[in-house]
Amino acid sequence: MKGPGRRLRKKESRKGPGRRLREKIDLFLLRKVSVVRVLYSALVRRKRNQNGASANSLLTSHKSCISLRMKSIRPYKINATAAPLSQEVENGLQPGSHQILDNENSRKPRRVMVIGGDGYCGWATALHLSNKNYEVAIVDNLVRRLFDHQLGLDSLTPICSIHNRLRRWKSLTGKTIQLQIGDICDFEFLSEAFKSFEPDAVVHFGEQRSAPYSMIDRSRAVFTQHNNVIGTLNVLFAIKEFGEECHLVKLGTMGEYGTPNIDIEEGYITITHNGRTDTLPYPKQASSFYHLSKVHDSNNIAFTCKAWGIRATDLNQGVVYGVRTDETEMHEELCNRFDYDGVFGTALNRFCVQAAVGHPLTVYGKGGQTRGYLDIRDTVQCVELAIANPAKPGEFRVFNQFTEQFSVNDLASLVTKAGKKLGLDVKTISVPNPRVEAEEHYYNAKHTKLIELGLQPHLLSDSLLDSLMNFAIEYKDRVDTSQIMPNVSWKKIGAKPRTVAA
Amino acid sequence: MKGPGRRLRKKESRKGPGRRLREKIDLFLLRKVSVVRVLYSALVRRKRNQNGASANSLLTSHKSCISLRMKSIRPYKINATAAPLSQEVENGLQPGSHQILDNENSRKPRRVMVIGGDGYCGWATALHLSNKNYEVAIVDNLVRRLFDHQLGLDSLTPICSIHNRLRRWKSLTGKTIQLQIGDICDFEFLSEAFKSFEPDAVVHFGEQRSAPYSMIDRSRAVFTQHNNVIGTLNVLFAIKEFGEECHLVKLGTMGEYGTPNIDIEEGYITITHNGRTDTLPYPKQASSFYHLSKVHDSNNIAFTCKAWGIRATDLNQGVVYGVRTDETEMHEELCNRFDYDGVFGTALNRFCVQAAVGHPLTVYGKGGQTRGYLDIRDTVQCVELAIANPAKPGEFRVFNQFTEQFSVNDLASLVTKAGKKLGLDVKTISVPNPRVEAEEHYYNAKHTKLIELGLQPHLLSDSLLDSLMNFAIEYKDRVDTSQIMPNVSWKKIGAKPRTVAA
Repeated sequence: MKGPGRRLRKKESRKGPGRRLREKIDLFLLRKVSVVRVLYSALVRRKRNQNGASANSLLTSHKSCISLRMKSIRPYKINATAAPLSQEVENGLQPGSHQILDNENSRKPRRVMVIGGDGYCGWATALHLSNKNYEVAIVDNLVRRLFDHQLGLDSLTPICSIHNRLRRWKSLTGKTIQLQIGDICDFEFLSEAFKSFEPDAVVHFGEQRSAPYSMIDRSRAVFTQHNNVIGTLNVLFAIKEFGEECHLVKLGTMGEYGTPNIDIEEGYITITHNGRTDTLPYPKQASSFYHLSKVHDSNNIAFTCKAWGIRATDLNQGVVYGVRTDETEMHEELCNRFDYDGVFGTALNRFCVQAAVGHPLTVYGKGGQTRGYLDIRDTVQCVELAIANPAKPGEFRVFNQFTEQFSVNDLASLVTKAGKKLGLDVKTISVPNPRVEAEEHYYNAKHTKLIELGLQPHLLSDSLLDSLMNFAIEYKDRVDTSQIMPNVSWKKIGAKPRTVAA
Repeated sequence: MKGPGRRLRKKESRKGPGRRLREKIDLFLLRKVSVVRVLYSALVRRKRNQNGASANSLLTSHKSCISLRMKSIRPYKINATAAPLSQEVENGLQPGSHQILDNENSRKPRRVMVIGGDGYCGWATALHLSNKNYEVAIVDNLVRRLFDHQLGLDSLTPICSIHNRLRRWKSLTGKTIQLQIGDICDFEFLSEAFKSFEPDAVVHFGEQRSAPYSMIDRSRAVFTQHNNVIGTLNVLFAIKEFGEECHLVKLGTMGEYGTPNIDIEEGYITITHNGRTDTLPYPKQASSFYHLSKVHDSNNIAFTCKAWGIRATDLNQGVVYGVRTDETEMHEELCNRFDYDGVFGTALNRFCVQAAVGHPLTVYGKGGQTRGYLDIRDTVQCVELAIANPAKPGEFRVFNQFTEQFSVNDLASLVTKAGKKLGLDVKTISVPNPRVEAEEHYYNAKHTKLIELGLQPHLLSDSLLDSLMNFAIEYKDRVDTSQIMPNVSWKKIGAKPRTVAA
């Protein structure tokens, strides 16, 4: 299906005269017109004219929604639209400097597609990469916002539409983030997104990412596994078909490992058994349909690295806390979402909100559940490090992405102390654990590979008051306390759809 | 969602007066009417009347196709329809005797749903269990037959429609096998099938089971993972919702393990690492989207055993060879399918056909690929042993289901020798390996658990001539030699649909 000829043509088009011509056209269009384009391809599948798609796709418009679609400016032309250096300095930012390891490619990765770039981690990452002068395209179907509507939930922070977010980013920094709205489970959409943007790296956050959501009912369990597994398969096929050199940076989770009674390594473990030795994938013991979907993804990706030579980094991320990053705090319209509810809220974020509104901290069961945690400012750092130091062709690389381990009781105690400093009287209660998990267990997970690449962690002790507690207090009037308690049970999940909110 | 009250009601309905009344109605219907019913539910979703479904569902009819739908006769009434003992003896069969281990249930498993019961392993298993006096229901959407049509393939043996197969079985043995035609990915269909049959055990063969099929193109890769993973999720939810005591016997594959450089254990491995020890799921390294789908299933099932108390046995089956079983050889209309083509044909079956028609044996690459193999007569034995000795509630039990290990070169050599005895001049050629796999490797897989339960293996040395070579020669005029060579490449699989057959 793919001979050397095809490969040659692809390489020519990447660097040859055709490419330069398209870049000139793009630059012209960028300067002269505001191009409006939305791909609601999950709903409206339109026939595309395959001939001259590059120019054509720029001219498609849609009235109901606005999306700036500006074709790539190559890095060496960045000054044509980028904010002047002085503006970066004005915003207190350092111009991007990356630790790039030598690899077989002379061309450094510059064009990054962020799938799920409207979500909690994705938004912060997209802005961070754009700020570091990567060319960024956000691919998102915005379904995370729909989940909130359907479940009657809302971010603690008021968040703008993705369209306004990107306009504000452009006006502040002069930098354009391309937006492609559609569902990666729709391969027709994803193909177009790939072919038009030609990413050097894809950061894939575009999955249903809540364990409780996946345990609401059968249809959400099936949705989660279908959406995550098939979406990722499509991304792998898109890379194989349209950009074999493209580096996949995939968000996994530390939850894939479960809580084994031995040290957790980064992806692989060397086992000596009956006198023989091999290094094998670390055994996985996921504990929700969501966590399982990530295990499935990891296995699928590992296979394609071996079979097709895909280059991939699996970032097994811990629990993320915090909301502010250098970029999101530039303007209120860039503010990130902050979930504290029983479905999407992560433990520490929820505790801070509870402390702020005088709700007791809700520890599930005994509270000995220990996990890896990291500040969202480290999430964006880690992703950037992975992109700047790509995996080799055929390599399936696994990094454990967290900075510190805490038990739930540790967190409750830290928040209680921090609350006291702010004059808050913080109580803790134990609620019946809605999950099926060990509540007291050994936990020791390695996390050195990202440190070796240059990660400089923000530690919780330094940021708890600044980045979390004060923040929760600032927005406490927006808290809906009815959303705090867990409402999804691992044991009681049923086959029938849960149609009534809360 | 489910309190103790619900559980109580379910138990009452299983054993109480309502159940007995239904059984009388069923017996009446069975004697007086032939009830025709087809669920093409993937295509036609009809609203069911939830009230009085038990009686109602018996009266639904459909013109286009015939399916005997006879409601369960409980074991203690088996003589009402079962063949007299003399007939069993006439057929050279021993009346069923099972090695049943003590477990917490006094009631022995009798009602077995065989999902995928029209396929190669499924059909042989359904007949075997029926012959052993289990009440059997086949659930199948018959899509395996569609694959043959679409790819231009055919079984070496002429096979009857599932409807004629079951009529013939009934006329020969007096035993009824219920048939429910539909797609288990359609939960509405699966729910009805479960509620009406109330299985004690579900044997789940209902998956797309060819590695090459899953590697034809993106859409088949996605189909395979969606079909297998979502189908199995639905089965798990059906068990949780409608029959918590039901034992899931799931067909996995030895291919889930890959070819590690250490001994392969049965599902779990005890690892000592940095001074600590734990027993963890054996690491998996699957090498096709099909094999990966089985890994995903295993992980999903393991979780539900832990979270919901599902009882499950994962049968990691080796490569199956042979076609005849005691039951299928009773009549030509019961004949099993036999695949020799490059997509569905397994190695040894293909070699025997090649020898019979004078086609060189096609060894992929170096031929050092070593796998576990078993006779289809052992497949049916193993499944029966698993059913008769069910897993405990919450137990996820893994058996490696094969009897002997061979390399591809071993098989070629055995077939060459057997051919000589029959006067055939058998040649072997090496063809480029279409797969991505190690062609020379260590392989030593444990397979003692089924032996401990009583498996008495049929060894290849004894059955090669009788059950395979002579059989292939008998049907050699039906061989389409154009289907023999591999036509699916692990490396060349593309995103575009392959629409042209062969």
